[in-house]
Amino acid sequence: MKIKDIGEFGLIERIHTKAGRSSYPVVIGIGDDASVLDVGPRNQVVTTTDMLVEGVHFLRESTDPFDLGFKSHAVNLSDIAAMGASPAQSFLSFGLPAEMDVETIDTFMDGFLMAGEGVPLSGGDTVASPDKWVISVTVIGLAPSGRVLRRDAAAPGESIWLCGPVGDSAAGLSILLDQTSTVNDQDARFLIQRHNRPLPQVRMGRILLEAGISSCAIDVSDGLLQDLGHICKRSQLGAELDLERIPLSGPIKELAAANVVDPYTWALKGGEDYSLLFTVKPDNEKKLLTVLEREEIEAVPIGRTVPGKGIVVLKNGSPIETGPDGGFDHFRKRP
Amino acid sequence: MKIKDIGEFGLIERIHTKAGRSSYPVVIGIGDDASVLDVGPRNQVVTTTDMLVEGVHFLRESTDPFDLGFKSHAVNLSDIAAMGASPAQSFLSFGLPAEMDVETIDTFMDGFLMAGEGVPLSGGDTVASPDKWVISVTVIGLAPSGRVLRRDAAAPGESIWLCGPVGDSAAGLSILLDQTSTVNDQDARFLIQRHNRPLPQVRMGRILLEAGISSCAIDVSDGLLQDLGHICKRSQLGAELDLERIPLSGPIKELAAANVVDPYTWALKGGEDYSLLFTVKPDNEKKLLTVLEREEIEAVPIGRTVPGKGIVVLKNGSPIETGPDGGFDHFRKRP
Repeated sequence: MKIKDIGEFGLIERIHTKAGRSSYPVVIGIGDDASVLDVGPRNQVVTTTDMLVEGVHFLRESTDPFDLGFKSHAVNLSDIAAMGASPAQSFLSFGLPAEMDVETIDTFMDGFLMAGEGVPLSGGDTVASPDKWVISVTVIGLAPSGRVLRRDAAAPGESIWLCGPVGDSAAGLSILLDQTSTVNDQDARFLIQRHNRPLPQVRMGRILLEAGISSCAIDVSDGLLQDLGHICKRSQLGAELDLERIPLSGPIKELAAANVVDPYTWALKGGEDYSLLFTVKPDNEKKLLTVLEREEIEAVPIGRTVPGKGIVVLKNGSPIETGPDGGFDHFRKRP
Repeated sequence: MKIKDIGEFGLIERIHTKAGRSSYPVVIGIGDDASVLDVGPRNQVVTTTDMLVEGVHFLRESTDPFDLGFKSHAVNLSDIAAMGASPAQSFLSFGLPAEMDVETIDTFMDGFLMAGEGVPLSGGDTVASPDKWVISVTVIGLAPSGRVLRRDAAAPGESIWLCGPVGDSAAGLSILLDQTSTVNDQDARFLIQRHNRPLPQVRMGRILLEAGISSCAIDVSDGLLQDLGHICKRSQLGAELDLERIPLSGPIKELAAANVVDPYTWALKGGEDYSLLFTVKPDNEKKLLTVLEREEIEAVPIGRTVPGKGIVVLKNGSPIETGPDGGFDHFRKRP
């Protein structure tokens, strides 16, 4: 049996089954945005790691090393944000062709460190790679003992909120891939920037945890439908989304209109926005609104959790067909 | 300027310079076997990460996936051991060609988990890789607050100890590469096993820390001379090694005699033994001997730290020439 036969999630499931249980103080292992380790009375250690491979995640010729450095750090910081933790230190491992310019690495590092906003690079590894550039990033965060935002902690009857835009990154990518004609340079730059330099919602995540507003969050990396699907599966519930409440940026609307495509396809199925999706119990909604106003953070309600399973998307109150729910699997070919 | 012009250590230095300082509670960043993060009154978090690339660290055709899994975990556990910490959780990221057999990964996982002796696999990443298999492992350990075994904590006048054999791994590798003719199958298997399944000295590291016997250790991954050199440089001192006290296994002596080579070349310059090298103040030597006997661990004194810098190897009390001090740099070609 080949890896492509079982796909990324099949492979993870298979490894997960082997990983077993132990007496070590691991509160959350495989299966959430990050792992959680109990280390004593004050803090928990929240850890996430991601790998990027040249030719799969990026093309060396067409990628700005600064953006690559920025994004490779940002996506890990986003996982820490999705747990409600504060990033404390980062690790960076490189597999590098010996012929690469040192200046390329310098520029990569500048982007990497800018995304971290002061999170110290505390270690890593540098090894030779025959031809492809490989990047592996690990970020460790801290959260107060006993509390993190978990994928499996939603209950029916909660409202679903989104902090940060969705769809922009996929729209930016379609411009980069010349699949979409642009209307004006400014909009194009905006959308490409959303794709190249996603902003992890670290402050929102921490506030949700510290103010006790939410106990369930995920970052939108695979796509809104797929990531909400992860929450539904792990929390054993269903969800309804109100299509017209999903926030769209001005540039994505312009781009969609000019290309006669539905911007909600990008918004529902496009990945890599790294917005924060979270659920809120009715009792906490007032507190959330107060905090959003005080902290000047924008987040909007886009639906609600319901008993049962599956996600229903409502357009003006009526269910619409969304097709196979998209997202990105590293090994299966998309239909 | 190309990466090969400045070499691995030049590149690390360059990245280190950029990494900067911060207000985060990172006790040790880049430059030791692992990083140390202060997380509260009870524990410190000790983190290390390593990357392995097919074609550089291993050849897929000639590598047993079980051994590869074992070793990729063991080398990281060894870094945790070198800090005196206890491993708490591991992370494993894969870059995998989609054509690979799932059974290969299963076997890899069996080896990986066996090396960990119960340390839970708590996360990671699985991504596609165009052709080369890439493995990135991160291990997080815990150590009591305020204490770890540091490379920069040795002082002149301490004895230098070695726990675990040196040279066996390099000898095993030379057999695998057909550079050395073997005497008998049993010895060959022994040495190859030392290369393929190194045993991290986790128990020794923890005991050294907990019993307050040592404050300085490193694992022998680059080679005895080079790793002792790291301690000397970071602790700003020199060292003398007594060649005849460096322990050699029976099989390495047999192999060297049959091939008319000096086994001490392997012992001094061969890497990947993952033995533990540590220093002990005169006042603590008696305590160490008591602990070694009680715990049935073998460790031997092989020299001493001295003021100044550089390493002198003494054979029957007289300095000998050891040439460029060897070890492995991922980007520079060996002379």
